[in-house]
Formats: sequence, C-alpha cells, structure tokens
Amino acid sequence: MYTRALNEWKEFVRIPSVSSGSAHRSHLFDCADWLVKHLQKMGMQRVVQLTTGVAPPVVYAEELIDTAKPTLLIYGHYDVQPPDPLNEWETPPFAPTVRGDYLYGRGVSDDKGQLFLHLKAVESLMAEHRLPINIKCLFEGEEEIGSQHLSNVLGTHQALFKADCAVVSDMRMLDLHQPALTYGLRGNIHAELLVTRHGTDLHSGVYGGIASNPIHGLAHIIAKLHTSKGQIALPSFYDDVFKISAAERTYMRKNGPSNAQLRQEIQMADGIGEECYTAYERLTIRPSLTVTGISGGYEGEGSKGVIPRQARAKLNFRLVPHQDSNQVAQSLSRYVAQQCPSGLRVEVSVTAQSNAYQVNPDERVFQAASSACQSVFGRKPVLLRSGGSIPIVSTLAGQLRLPVVMMGFASPFDNLHAPNERFYIPNFFRGVETSKQFIRNLEFMHHAYH
Amino acid sequence: MYTRALNEWKEFVRIPSVSSGSAHRSHLFDCADWLVKHLQKMGMQRVVQLTTGVAPPVVYAEELIDTAKPTLLIYGHYDVQPPDPLNEWETPPFAPTVRGDYLYGRGVSDDKGQLFLHLKAVESLMAEHRLPINIKCLFEGEEEIGSQHLSNVLGTHQALFKADCAVVSDMRMLDLHQPALTYGLRGNIHAELLVTRHGTDLHSGVYGGIASNPIHGLAHIIAKLHTSKGQIALPSFYDDVFKISAAERTYMRKNGPSNAQLRQEIQMADGIGEECYTAYERLTIRPSLTVTGISGGYEGEGSKGVIPRQARAKLNFRLVPHQDSNQVAQSLSRYVAQQCPSGLRVEVSVTAQSNAYQVNPDERVFQAASSACQSVFGRKPVLLRSGGSIPIVSTLAGQLRLPVVMMGFASPFDNLHAPNERFYIPNFFRGVETSKQFIRNLEFMHHAYH
Repeated sequence: MYTRALNEWKEFVRIPSVSSGSAHRSHLFDCADWLVKHLQKMGMQRVVQLTTGVAPPVVYAEELIDTAKPTLLIYGHYDVQPPDPLNEWETPPFAPTVRGDYLYGRGVSDDKGQLFLHLKAVESLMAEHRLPINIKCLFEGEEEIGSQHLSNVLGTHQALFKADCAVVSDMRMLDLHQPALTYGLRGNIHAELLVTRHGTDLHSGVYGGIASNPIHGLAHIIAKLHTSKGQIALPSFYDDVFKISAAERTYMRKNGPSNAQLRQEIQMADGIGEECYTAYERLTIRPSLTVTGISGGYEGEGSKGVIPRQARAKLNFRLVPHQDSNQVAQSLSRYVAQQCPSGLRVEVSVTAQSNAYQVNPDERVFQAASSACQSVFGRKPVLLRSGGSIPIVSTLAGQLRLPVVMMGFASPFDNLHAPNERFYIPNFFRGVETSKQFIRNLEFMHHAYH
Repeated sequence: MYTRALNEWKEFVRIPSVSSGSAHRSHLFDCADWLVKHLQKMGMQRVVQLTTGVAPPVVYAEELIDTAKPTLLIYGHYDVQPPDPLNEWETPPFAPTVRGDYLYGRGVSDDKGQLFLHLKAVESLMAEHRLPINIKCLFEGEEEIGSQHLSNVLGTHQALFKADCAVVSDMRMLDLHQPALTYGLRGNIHAELLVTRHGTDLHSGVYGGIASNPIHGLAHIIAKLHTSKGQIALPSFYDDVFKISAAERTYMRKNGPSNAQLRQEIQMADGIGEECYTAYERLTIRPSLTVTGISGGYEGEGSKGVIPRQARAKLNFRLVPHQDSNQVAQSLSRYVAQQCPSGLRVEVSVTAQSNAYQVNPDERVFQAASSACQSVFGRKPVLLRSGGSIPIVSTLAGQLRLPVVMMGFASPFDNLHAPNERFYIPNFFRGVETSKQFIRNLEFMHHAYH
C-alpha cells in the first residue's frame, strides 16, 4: 500500500489547484474531478460534485453501512496557496519530489496530504470489510480564500451532511513525534487598502515636492497600525479579547511550543510582539495584524521618475475569541481614514473574514481521537491552540452543530504557505493508522450522540 | 512639409524604445538604426553609431560647412520612459495618434518630438542651402536611466564633439503660447531599498504576532523619510542647499508658474511641501524625495496568508545646487539603517545620480535663443528653473566646456512620464522655426566663442 498511496498522493499534488486569483481556475475543477474519480475507485457508495456555479465544486462522498451506527464527517480542502515566490523552491511546487523522509510540493501538507490520509484509512477499512461506522466526506476548493460558498452549500444540503461528529486535519503536531489535538483557532480578516490621489501619474522631477504621494500615505498608514509597544493601534481593539484562565496558561506554558522552538521555526533570534506573553500565547490567545503584500508605482527593473496615482496593501488580521470580525473591519475603515494624509483617499475592502473558534476538549469524540493518537504514536497528544484560522470549523460546529476534532499530522517545519512545503512521509502513514483507529473508536461512541 | 514631418515623427514614436528594464533592449537598437537612416536621408555628411558595447548606441551626425563658422551641438535622447500603467492610456502608447491639436504617444514630447524638431530645422536649412553654421548631433538612448555610458563616449571622442555651444530641448514652456528658456535643473538620485528578514516566507496565521515583517519595516522607514513639516529627515540634508538671491526669487514669483497653475497641473486643491516656499520654489530651489515604487509579499489577486521575506522600494531624490549626490547617498544609507526595526536588515543601492546644474543666462548664446523664441512666438521667453534633472547638461557643460541652451517646447499639461503623453502639434512646428532662427542667429555669435 505504501508505494501506491505515495504515488496517488503525488498525483493529487501535481494538480496546481491554487484558489487565489483566476489563473488556476480550471485546475481547481480538474482537482475536484480527480478526487471524484479517486473516491469512486475506492468503491464509495455515492460520490457527487455539489454544484456551486462558478465556484470550485464541493465534493461529497458517502459510505453508509448502518443508519444505527455513528456517522463521521471528514472535512478537507483540495485547494492550495499560491506557490510564489517560485524561485525559492528547490524543486517545482507542482512536481512533488521525495527527498529524504519528506515529500516536497505545494499542498503536500496543506491540505492535500492531510485530506488524503483519511481516504487511505477509509479505503483500508473498506478493503478489510471492517468499516464500523458511516463515513461522509466533504472536500472543498475555497479554503485558502475564505470558504465563501461553503456555508450556502451546507445550508442547501443540510440532510446530506447530517453526522455525529467531524474531523478536520489541517493543522500541525507539536513536533515530528509528538501528536497533538487542536482546540482553538484564531479568526481572520483579509482586507485590502487602496490609497489614491486624484489625477494621473506625475513626473517625480517636475512635481516632486508638491504632489501628494500615495506610497508615502500608505507607508504612513501602515506605520500607524501598530503602537511602539507592538500592539495593534485600532481604538478599542483589545476590549473584547477573551482572558483565558490561569490554569490554561499554565498548561500552555508546560505543553505548548517553547519560545526557543518558535524562534527556531521563524529563524529569528528575537521575535516581535506584546510584552508579558510567551511567543505561543502571542500566536494563539493574542490577535495579530500582518501586511501580507504591498504594491504601487514602478516595480519593474531599473528606475522610473514617477509619483504614482495609487498604492495598495493587503492586510491580514488574526482574531481571538470574543473579537467580532465585523466590528474590527469597521474599526479598521474608520482608523485608516483618520490616518490618511490630506490630499489622498483610502478605501478598505474586506475579502474574507471569520471569528475565532474554540472547542471543548472534554467532548467524548475528542477522547476517541486522543486514544487513537496514543495507540499509534505511543504518546498522549498535547492539546494545542493554533494561530491559524479554519473558518470551516466554526461553520461545521455552528451550522451543522457537530463536535469537530482537529487532528493534525503536519510538523512545525513543513513550510506551510511558503516555498518548499513538505510532509514527513512516516507521519502520513501514522496518520492513516490514527485515522483508522479513530474510526474504530467511534463505533463505541455512538450513544453519546444519539 | 507638415504632413511628411508628422508622419516621420509618428514613425519615430512607434518604436518602443524604453530604456528601463531589459524587455525593450532590442527596440533601443532599432530606434538608433531608424535615426541613422533618417539622418542619412537628410543628407548629412557623416552619420555614425558610436559603439558602446551592450549599451544603446550613441548616434552622432555632422554637417560641416566651414571650419571658420561656429558649431552647434544638438543633443537629444531617443529612449523613453516605461509606458505603464498601460490601462490608463486612451490610445496605445506606441501607436501615436492625433486627437485635436495634439499628438499622443510615449515619447512624443520627451524627448523624441523635441529632438526631431531640430532635425526638421536642420533639414529645412539644408534644403534651402542656407545652413549658416556647422551642425553636430549627439543622440543617446540612456537618458531616462541616467546616461551611464555617455560620459565615457564623450571622453573617447572628445575631438568629434568639439563645438561652440549646445542646445538641449527636453523641457517645457510656461504655457502653450509662452516660450521659456531653462537655466536651472535639479540633481537626481535613484536608489532602491531592500528590507529582508532572515529565513523564508511564513504563514501569517501560524506566525502572525511574533515574526518581523519586512513590509512593516519598509513602511516604518518610509514614514521616517520626511518630518511632520514635510522636510526630508536625513541629518544635515539641508546644510549645503544653495540660498538664491532675493532678486531671483522676485523674478521667479513674477514670471514662473503660479501656485494655482501648478495645483492645476497636479490636479490637487492642496499640495504638500515646505512652508515659506511657493510651489514653483518647492519644485526648483528646494530638494524633494519621492518613493516611486514599492513591492513586497503577495501582490496578486485575492489574498495570501503570508509574512514575506522581503520588501523593496524605489526612491528618487531631486537635489538643488551645492548638494552633493554622493554625500546624500551615503547619508541615506546610514539613516535608513538607523531606522530599520530590529530583526530586519536594509540595503541601499544607488542606480543613478547627478548633481543640480545652473547656467548663466547672460551667455551670448542664450541671447541668440531668446531672440529666436521672440521672433517666432512674438513674446520674450521667460527664464525658468526646472524641477527635473538632465544629467547630460552638466556633462556637456563640464566635460566639453560648452555653454548649453535649454530651450523647451513641451507644455505643462503634456503628461511627461505619465499615461497619455502628448505634444501640442502647432508648437512642434513653431519649435522647428525657432530652431532655424536660433541657428541663423548663431552665425553672428561666432566671435564670442573663438
């Protein structure tokens, strides 16, 4: 099974299903088709693409063995982040390559590999005629751009997605050999700032010294987004931030990634951020604001003597429990308008948003996952908060009212969203085993959910 | 002659001889070839491309009628600025188009049109067998990127360029009907800032809040380049700035463009800049600093959750008399290093530089130009300082020890360096006539220069 699974996994990764931008639109559809074929080949009873118009299709599959048994919904996403900067990849992002114990390629970890290991678990149980519960699969192609259409699909097909619990594998372990279950995610706002000056581009010699410059204005606004103490400068921004308990902070300090590990992950001797918080806390129970892209004026080779007409930046907030993404977005618009130098205009557009989410680790399904991890890895999983955002988790929990297990198999050094994304191949197969064991454990969880 | 000249001018503009970047490299050579053919067709005695290796060739031509007569060196450049942003052109930049009294296209004014009108003047005098002086032409293809190789060419061929005076037409009139002679230019530094973080791109969810962000660092540095009063914040930056006389300031206020006109040119109700100076003064006797381009992180459609590894900006200083471009470049490097947030590194590279330049309007060749303008336009030309930089002018004056007449025929609303660059066609032909009259006037200037 090892070689075949590895080859299939590579096939899956080879499809450049980048969801951001429109260049790879058709590849998203190709990727959905590939998944459908694969699910059919596995012999699943029902495999469909749920129509969502121009959006990449939601792929649904089910294997129902007994309506009296529990049902697990497996969620994953087949879209991936843009691979740029391309020149920093050692091997091309969509030519998956094994080097040492790792498979390299865009999406090998996030989330094609982690989605695929569940399929290999289900396939294996089906082949052994030992699938003990009902399985439903929900695979989408818009996770990296905010899952805009998924909520509608869930609403339309509510009966289809009826289940007892869900599992999402789109996160990391603590290290290569220490399994982890994630119980908290940050929320998310992706927004764009556009600063403009009335009129056209101007000659920087002829008009340099009198004409307002949108790049200067944008830089000024960005410089004002944080205080000198590293806090986000929006008024009242921290008012709703949830204060976690001393007990949880103690657990986090003892079991979570250390400052040293996180500094190693970011390859920096000193990090930035708020005083009085560990690096792990800054990443999980404290919000952040990152400018993820900036552009304006002449960006080509050489120079051009120009005062440009506009400049733009992309912002990404990460929010924590009790912060409301709508309120933050409104506050951002007001604040940047106040900071915008005279003679210039700033517009804010929000392209995606979600609130933070946390689950209760006392749920029985969580125990089933924990026990599965322990039996495969030989170690009890640590409970982790994640700095990332997975809007689908709150959607599944909120809209379908499912307890969601977040069980990740990526490692902290897998370069998620960065060049040379990779996955530790032994953990792919331990992931398959853990998924199988989790499914087995769920058979006896039945009464908890009916 | 009108129709033929217009068609030839269009042909010249149609060649996309953009010197910045490498995409149009071969078009620069095409354009030099076109010029050579044109000069040969005019019947000039000697037309050569002076070899400069990979650099766009310097085109030289001469028509020597009598070594006892004065010699005029006509300078122009056949390279043009990049045409982007392309989508803002009403007609394509390299498909020259007449609309109303204007010809539109990249380079119609800067500097193909203004170069070409001198050729039409020389051609006309030659056809009439009335060329009264010797003519030499010096046309280069690197003006828009700092004329890096020209100084070497002038050094190697010093005898070839021996002349009594030079004329440069790469500037503007005061308005469509008010001729002008330019006697002052600002200097220039084009530099690039590169801010980097050690390591690779990072996930903005997983690491947002602890990893330094080069875009934030770059924005911080840019925000610190100016004081809150609109002055350039580099230490000692204004120490060497030349104080012009009260008499000149009075002349400038009376004869130069008004605040109202300059505001109209930049399409802004309020400009920016230093208090206590008129807009015209801010543009000419005061230095400026413009960020002409910025880029970093994800700049494509949609969003990407990334903390990028690097960000860069292009800067353009304009310097005034007595400021030394080397000193300013060094001061910039020190200053941005001090402003760079910890965890990040900033590098400065200077891509072009020149000092400011001013000529003495009492030179007799200036009087010849003034009188030519007056006879064609019916008005005495105003004397203008320009905010732009033409490094060649100081090179000609310094290296060849020539008095340089800067006689411009573009208008303030011709969108130089911007989309929809244009030239008022009647002034092209008035320019031809002015050039002819200037050449005639020079016959009697002889004794002043021998």
